Parts: sequence; structure tokens; C-alpha cells
Amino acid sequence: MKEFNAGDVLSLCKRRGFIYPAYEIYGGIAGLYDYGPLGTQMKTNLINLWRSIYVLSEGFIEIDSDIIGPEIVFKASGHAENFQDLMVTCNQCQESFRADHLAKDLHPNPGALSKKDLQALLREKNVICPLCKGDLSDVEEFNLMFKTKIGPGNGRVGYLRPETAQGIFVNYPNLYRYAREQLPFGAVQIGRAYRNEISPRQGVIRLREFNQMEAELFIDPANKSWPRFKLIRDVKVRLVPNTDEKEVEMTFGEAVDNGVIKHETIAYFVWVTQSFLIRAGVDPKRLRFRQHLRSEMAHYAADCWDAEALLSYGWTEIVGVADRGAWDLTRHIQYSQADLSAFKRFDHPKEVERQAFKPKYGLLGPEFKARSAKVGMALEAADVSLLKDGRVEIDVDGEMMTIPEKYFDVVLVKEKINGEKVIPHVIEPSHGLDRIMFTCLEHAYSCDDENYVRMGLTTAAAPIKVGVFPLMAKDDLDKRAMEIDQMLRERGIATYFDDSGTIGRRYARMDEVGTPLCITVDYQVFEDGTVTIRDRDTSRQVRVPEEGLADVVEKLLKGIKFDQLIGKV
Amino acid sequence: MKEFNAGDVLSLCKRRGFIYPAYEIYGGIAGLYDYGPLGTQMKTNLINLWRSIYVLSEGFIEIDSDIIGPEIVFKASGHAENFQDLMVTCNQCQESFRADHLAKDLHPNPGALSKKDLQALLREKNVICPLCKGDLSDVEEFNLMFKTKIGPGNGRVGYLRPETAQGIFVNYPNLYRYAREQLPFGAVQIGRAYRNEISPRQGVIRLREFNQMEAELFIDPANKSWPRFKLIRDVKVRLVPNTDEKEVEMTFGEAVDNGVIKHETIAYFVWVTQSFLIRAGVDPKRLRFRQHLRSEMAHYAADCWDAEALLSYGWTEIVGVADRGAWDLTRHIQYSQADLSAFKRFDHPKEVERQAFKPKYGLLGPEFKARSAKVGMALEAADVSLLKDGRVEIDVDGEMMTIPEKYFDVVLVKEKINGEKVIPHVIEPSHGLDRIMFTCLEHAYSCDDENYVRMGLTTAAAPIKVGVFPLMAKDDLDKRAMEIDQMLRERGIATYFDDSGTIGRRYARMDEVGTPLCITVDYQVFEDGTVTIRDRDTSRQVRVPEEGLADVVEKLLKGIKFDQLIGKV
Repeated sequence: MKEFNAGDVLSLCKRRGFIYPAYEIYGGIAGLYDYGPLGTQMKTNLINLWRSIYVLSEGFIEIDSDIIGPEIVFKASGHAENFQDLMVTCNQCQESFRADHLAKDLHPNPGALSKKDLQALLREKNVICPLCKGDLSDVEEFNLMFKTKIGPGNGRVGYLRPETAQGIFVNYPNLYRYAREQLPFGAVQIGRAYRNEISPRQGVIRLREFNQMEAELFIDPANKSWPRFKLIRDVKVRLVPNTDEKEVEMTFGEAVDNGVIKHETIAYFVWVTQSFLIRAGVDPKRLRFRQHLRSEMAHYAADCWDAEALLSYGWTEIVGVADRGAWDLTRHIQYSQADLSAFKRFDHPKEVERQAFKPKYGLLGPEFKARSAKVGMALEAADVSLLKDGRVEIDVDGEMMTIPEKYFDVVLVKEKINGEKVIPHVIEPSHGLDRIMFTCLEHAYSCDDENYVRMGLTTAAAPIKVGVFPLMAKDDLDKRAMEIDQMLRERGIATYFDDSGTIGRRYARMDEVGTPLCITVDYQVFEDGTVTIRDRDTSRQVRVPEEGLADVVEKLLKGIKFDQLIGKV
Repeated sequence: MKEFNAGDVLSLCKRRGFIYPAYEIYGGIAGLYDYGPLGTQMKTNLINLWRSIYVLSEGFIEIDSDIIGPEIVFKASGHAENFQDLMVTCNQCQESFRADHLAKDLHPNPGALSKKDLQALLREKNVICPLCKGDLSDVEEFNLMFKTKIGPGNGRVGYLRPETAQGIFVNYPNLYRYAREQLPFGAVQIGRAYRNEISPRQGVIRLREFNQMEAELFIDPANKSWPRFKLIRDVKVRLVPNTDEKEVEMTFGEAVDNGVIKHETIAYFVWVTQSFLIRAGVDPKRLRFRQHLRSEMAHYAADCWDAEALLSYGWTEIVGVADRGAWDLTRHIQYSQADLSAFKRFDHPKEVERQAFKPKYGLLGPEFKARSAKVGMALEAADVSLLKDGRVEIDVDGEMMTIPEKYFDVVLVKEKINGEKVIPHVIEPSHGLDRIMFTCLEHAYSCDDENYVRMGLTTAAAPIKVGVFPLMAKDDLDKRAMEIDQMLRERGIATYFDDSGTIGRRYARMDEVGTPLCITVDYQVFEDGTVTIRDRDTSRQVRVPEEGLADVVEKLLKGIKFDQLIGKV
């Protein structure tokens, strides 16, 4: 097998219709790519696979919220303040650069430097514009959200969401109600997110407009165990813990028992992530989970693991699984004043004591007459901390009244309570769909010494499932093949009909885009009603009766091995 | 059945998790709605149905392009200039209004008035601010695109796309290549589009952020027939032609033969639209196709039909099917200088005559020596219109040379050409997904005199396909029901498990969200292994063995009638 690089894969992707540089006829825009016909189909396949796991198997609910949001949402989320990169601009050619990129040969980790330190470093080393050698501006912050305005005139400031997650958090009251007010429950969202990169490079790895699949699981902060964890205790995983930053393989059970992964719920969703990625087509040998360094981790995060794939760019983050604690909901409570809590019912009601006002009804009656009952009830309900200078101000039917202490005693009362309000903690598996897709493409790519390219995409991911060819475009072979093509499509199977060029050329075109199966209709169909099915990975063929062909194809696509089929048909 | 209005349906949608006002905890924003769990599932179902028609049956390719685009794209598309509403702003409270909305009681069709006429009308009638009675500003244009900036500093101006279509047009060269350079071919796109409404009302009918499903079919301008049209000639359709604006029912064949619909291709896609909408759940009795009036139709449009649904808001456009001619591609050719043509191969090569230079090689030789052959070839290839003042300037191997006319004659030559370049015409079925969805919900809604709500959603559209209930949450009935629930989910069937409240209450909850089937596990399961399946529309029940249950459910969801099942199980 020949060595290859990201450029080889990307150029195949462009040529065959997976990915197109956006607005190419207008010269293109860095950081914007479109999905072509094959890319769109593959993206849909990955979304469906992910959805079948999260929504159907794990029982998450899915929402689809707006991309544009008002400023206050992103003040609450912290993005207005913190979603920024440090930038310098050339005083001469006006081009802007990420300041840490210009310092990459001057410091082991320039991304971790403060604005001041980065400024000092660039000045000290006399860094100039890499394009025109002009002088550079001071280092300044650049917020990475795309800004817009909602409505005309003095319309309000809005931003394009930097992550899909916020749409779930701001809908928490609706979703909690939908989940019938019980923890744990989870919600997912699949959709666009935006990051107005200063000067994006690295092809489809760093995009200004990208696709996320995010899950937010709301759990009881006091209980981070996970019932289904026991099912996956013995599954192995490659971890890079932040203690010594060395890669190590262990079971999920060992990881949790030894405190490498903080708790069962994070561990379970690391497993879900691993299992999804492998089914999608990520090579297990080029996949690992790296724990965030303490210095990388958000201050509120209890634990955080990145799924990293080995690409020709190096190890690249493609999924993050984080315990975000109560951070997000707490911030939105603070900014919206809404109740984003969950009511946690005790197994048994608890008896608690509290101080309360006990009205002296004998004295209230003469003083307040007909209203005395209402005054008494308002006193009973009032908080004793309101007592000040021997009097208390209370709300009686909307009117504020001041009641002197001669009208009540302060006593201890016992009460039964059934539960308490808690702010749920959030476990977030956040997926970069574009990066996952590119990983699947790069991991599937192989090119032999004769430059024969075969994409080993999984049947789940492959955009075209079956190539359908008449041996010749004549003698009714083409009509017969077209009928098979249409029949498979009606079953919901994505096909590609091709009647041009040699059969070898047609197989090669399908191998190059990862099509797992090809059906060829040759003259034998007129004798015994059979056609051939060819397996992409082995190039082996088997004859199958036209009747029942769709069932055979479906079985092959669902994972029955080609060898088993040969015995059976 | 009780009368109802859009508010009843919308409030059910909010309560049950179809649609939520966006950013409700922050007070909401007009024109922005989120899809809740049921809405998202239903939206996905409608997309899958549409995709199965356009991509699998009709063979369109699908792309997924960026939402953000640079200004030049929307200059080419005309949106920068024409995508605008007329607006007035209150000088006192600063609120903005659509000028035509304020004139709605003053003129039969204020939307058709020019800026000047609308201004005159509002002044003449002394129209003031409907909120604070303040004076209004002059009428001004407001462009409805959301504006942003791509990149930092002097980054370029960008807009959020007002329609998904442009992403297809700018990718034309890629898509034409993918389609192996043959007409006709079609591309679709499903995704967000934006319209920064001045003051949106009408719930989910007029949104600032919405979802489109658009198809662009590229055809030979000289051939607007459509082979599959013959299959649907006899299907009936309700049309409102622009000649007399009266509703009339006829077959598609009659419509084309009588010139009511301009040609077969438009007619065929009106049929595709009708057939999709009915399968999605639009009531055929509340659906019609209205032809744009000549005054409404874009100047470049050859024909245009809107699918209109009768909603409580009145007849509402939900799909448009237009023949856009060569307009879009021509504009992008003009702005990008790219070649957006198709090569139309003649059935037989044509012989044409043209004027050409005929070099006098006898004279060229002595003068240009070794280069004379190249000079001669460049002359042969040159356009005779370059001849000026007895000389011609030609490019010889990158060097411009001036050749006097003594070195050549101008002669007539005959040539065979195999085809010609044409700018394809575009047929565009453009779907407002949110409006289609709301139509399906409103048309499915019924409420009887006891306020019992039943949503008659089609099995294709229904977000939950099967409710699964244990009769009691005990005696292993719940375990048995949970296993059925999980088994159906593994088959890809969306279920809802419910073990709380009476069975009647649970059926009612499912009827209210349009769930077609409910399975109840009662004590008889322990005797004969059967459970009940209940039909939403008739409330009838049938006992079915647990074994093979999923097959029965799949058949019912695929359209086998409940009555047929009763006979068979």
C-alpha cells in the first residue's frame, strides 16, 4: 500500500463529489466547504446511525432549535466573553493572523500564553507579517461568533450559535416537562454551528461553518452511577489519562474502579462514543481517548475526555465527552431568572423543623376584623427572617401590611417534605460531524502500487450501497438492470446505475467511492435468472437469483459476510 | 366536531412538544420557533419522505451547501437589490412596521403599491403608529437578508442565504460534472434559510429562520417534455389558472393539452408535489394549485404554480413550482465569468460554414522561418473579427504578434460540429417545510364535543409510531412491555413507553399526538402470548401474538389496513 496524505484524500473527495470548496466559481472562501452528492448522502448516513444510537437505543429526545440567538444567551453561556482568539493584523497589507500561529516556532505551547505574554514574545522576536513583511499591530482579542442584527432599525444584536448545546439548555423547562419531570433525561441536537476563524487552514478540519451532533444528559448531581454501565465493564478502551499523558489500554471497569475516568456515566458515554465511531468507520487502531489536562479543562468541568483520531494532520479531536457540572443551567438561571431545576423526590418523605410565625388570633380578630383570617394565614406562610425591629412586613392579598410582634409568637414547627430542588449536572458528548466524516474517509482510503484506490467505507457510512450495471447497454440487459436499480431504490437502498465503459472501469469507479456491492446483469440472466453480486473488499463474485435479490442485498448490508452468503445461495 | 382555530393547534403543539417559542426563558423573539422532541421527529419524517421521492424515485442528487455566503452571490441572485420590504418606523417609540400592513384596510392590494404610492396613501390617510399613536417616518426599503461579516477586521460582507437554491446554482459546474455532463439532471437541498422580517406575526407561518426543501432541475431549453408525464396524464388536480382565477378540476393531461399548465415538466412536478403533500398528510380537499398572476410572476419565469393549503389563516402558499428559465445561471455567469453551460450533443453532426484566415505558407516561411508553422496554425485558429486595418494581432506561443494581410486570405470553410453549448433552463419545486408541517398538523387536528383531541397524522408523518403500555406497572407486565418497546426501537420504529395513569388516559395522550398504533400488554400475555394492538382512528383492538409482532406493526405502518389485519392474525 502506498503512503498518502490528506491532500490525496481531499482531492479524491472533490473529484468524486464528496466535498466541494464553497463558492468556487467566485474564488472560494477559506473555511467554507459544501457537501457534494456523495458527501451529503454519507453525512445523512452518519446522522442516521448516530440518531439510532442516541434516540432509539439510549432514549434521548431530539430537538431542533434556531441557529440565530440573541446576545443575552451568549452572555449567559460565556461565549460573548470567552469565545475568542488572539489576533494580530499587518499594518501594511491589512491581513489578520492568529497570534499563536505566528509564535508556533518560538514557544512549545503558544496557544496557552496570555495576551500580554504573546505580545511580549512576538515583539521580542521581531515577528513580522509572513505575507508582506510589514509591521504587525498589537495583539488583540477577536470574538469568534458571527454577529448579525435581528429585525430592522434598532434591531437587537444576534449571533450565530457557536454550538448547538445552548439551544438545549435554553429549552430546559420545556424538555424537563416533556420528560415528565424525572431525572435522568437526555436531549440531542444535530445541526450547524459557527466559528468565525481568523485565518482557517487544514482543509475541512477547521471550518467556519460546521456540523455538530451534541447530546446533553441531565443527571442527579448526587448520583453519577449508570445502570447500563455493568453491560460494558469488560470492554477495552485506549486511554491517555492526564496524570502521566501515556497511552494505556484497559477495560472501562478498570478505568472507573481505579479513578482514571471519574464516574460510570462519563465512562458509559465514552463507550457509546467509541462504539459509534467504530461503526461509522473510524479505524480502532487510530482511535484513542485523551483526558483533558487540568490546565485545559474548563474550571467547572469535573472530567473531560476527547476522542482523538490519528489523521495525516496528527492526532485530532473529533468528539468531546465532558461532565459540565451545573455550570450551564446555573448561568442561564442567573441571566434569565427562570427556574431550571429538577424536583428530586425522596424515597421517603423527610421531617424537617423550621421557625415560623404563630399568629395570636385572639388579638388579630379585634384589630383586623374580617381580614384577620387572611392576615393570620399570610403570617403563617411568611419567612421569619423578615422579622425586623419588632415588626414584619407581609403581603396580604396584594397589599403590604406591617404587623407588630405583639400579634404573633415565633415557634418551631415540624414539616414533612417530599423532595428538594436540585440543579441537574450535565454530561455532554459533543461530536464534530465534519471531522468524523473526514476521519472515516481518510481511514477508509487505500491506494496500491498501481494507483488503484479502494475506499473501505462501512456499509453504514457508504453513500452508495450498490452499483448496478448491465454487462452491455443493449439486448435488454440495460432494461433488466434498470428494473433492478429501481426495485432496490424503492426498498430505500441507494444505488448507482452505470452502463458506460468496461465492467472493470465501472467496478473501479465504485471501489473509489466505497460502494460495498456491485450487481452485474449479464447474458446468463436469460438462461437461469441469476445476476452477479461482487464484494468490494475481496473482488469476489457470487451468482444470485434475481428473485429475492433485494433480501440478499439487505442481509449483506446488515453485516452478513459475503463468505456466508456463498454457502447459502 | 368542534370548530377550531390556529391558536388551538399551536397551543397543543407547544404543550405536547411539537413546537416551542424560541428563547422563551429570555422572553422569546418574534419569528423564531424551535422544534421540540415530537416536532423534530415529525420534521425528520417529512424530510425522509421527500428525500425518498426526489432522491430515490426521481433520481435527483442531493447537496448540502453553506448557509453563509459572500455578497457577490446575492448580487448575482438579485437578492441584494430586490429582497426587501417597505417599512415605516415610529418617530416616537422607534417600533418598525411593514408599510403595506398598515395600509391593509386602505387599499385592496397594498403589497403591490410602489414605495411612492404607499407613502402617499399613508400620508393622505394620516396613518399613525398603531402602538403609541406617534408620527411615522417616510417609507423606506429594508433588505430582508441577515448581514454578517466573514473573518476579522476588514472581513468581507456576508449574508445568511434567503433560499437554499443559490447553493445549487453556484455549484453548477461540480454538479454537471457529477451528472456526467448530461441533461436533464436535478439537484436538491434541504436546510435552513433566513428572512429578517420587519415584524413577523402569524405564528409559524412567517418565520425569520425557516426550513426549505428545494429541487432544481436543469433541462434542455428546447425540450420541456418529460418522459414520465405519460404515467400521470389521467391524474386529477385542482387548479386556479391565472386567466380567470377560478378553481377548476381537470387531469394533468387536459391541463397541458389546453395550455393551462405551460409544459409537461412543470405539470409533472406539480403532480410530484401533490402526491408528496397528500402522503405527508395534507388534506386533498384543502389543497389546490394556483397559477401566479402575470403581475406576480418574476419577469424571467415562464410559468409558476403555488401549492396552496387552506389553513385557519386562509389559503396559504406552501410550495412553489416555477419554470425559472435561464435566469439564475445567466446571472451567475455574468457575475462569476464561469462557464455554467451544458454541451448539447446533436443526434447527427452538423455541417456549418464560417469565415477563416487561410495562411499563405509560401510567404510565411521566408519571413518567420522556424516559427512559420506555428504562426500559420495560430492564424487558422483566430477569429476573423480580429482583422483590423489590414492586420491581425494573434497569440503565438504566448507572444502577441501582428501579421499584415499579405500573409493570408479570408476564406469560407466548412466544419462539422457535434453539438452546441446551451444554458439549461431551471424547473424549481421549492417547499416551505415548516408551513407544510403546520398544514399537516392543522389538517390532522380534530376535537369532539367532549374536547377529545385526535390528530389524524399519516403513518409517514407521525412522530411516534407506537405507544407501548403495560396494563399495570407490576407483575412483570412492565418488564414484558419494556422488552417489546426495546425490540421495536431496534427495528428502527419510534415508540413511546408509558406506564402511568389509566389505559384510557394513555390512549388519549397518544391520540392527541397522532400515534397510529398502541400496544397494550395485559395478563392474557401469560396465557396465550398475545398482546393487543389498538388503531387510533377507529379505537378498535385486535389481539396479536408477541412473536412476529414487529412484522405486523411494520405492515400496519406501511399501509395495510387494520381491518385486513383482523382477518389475518
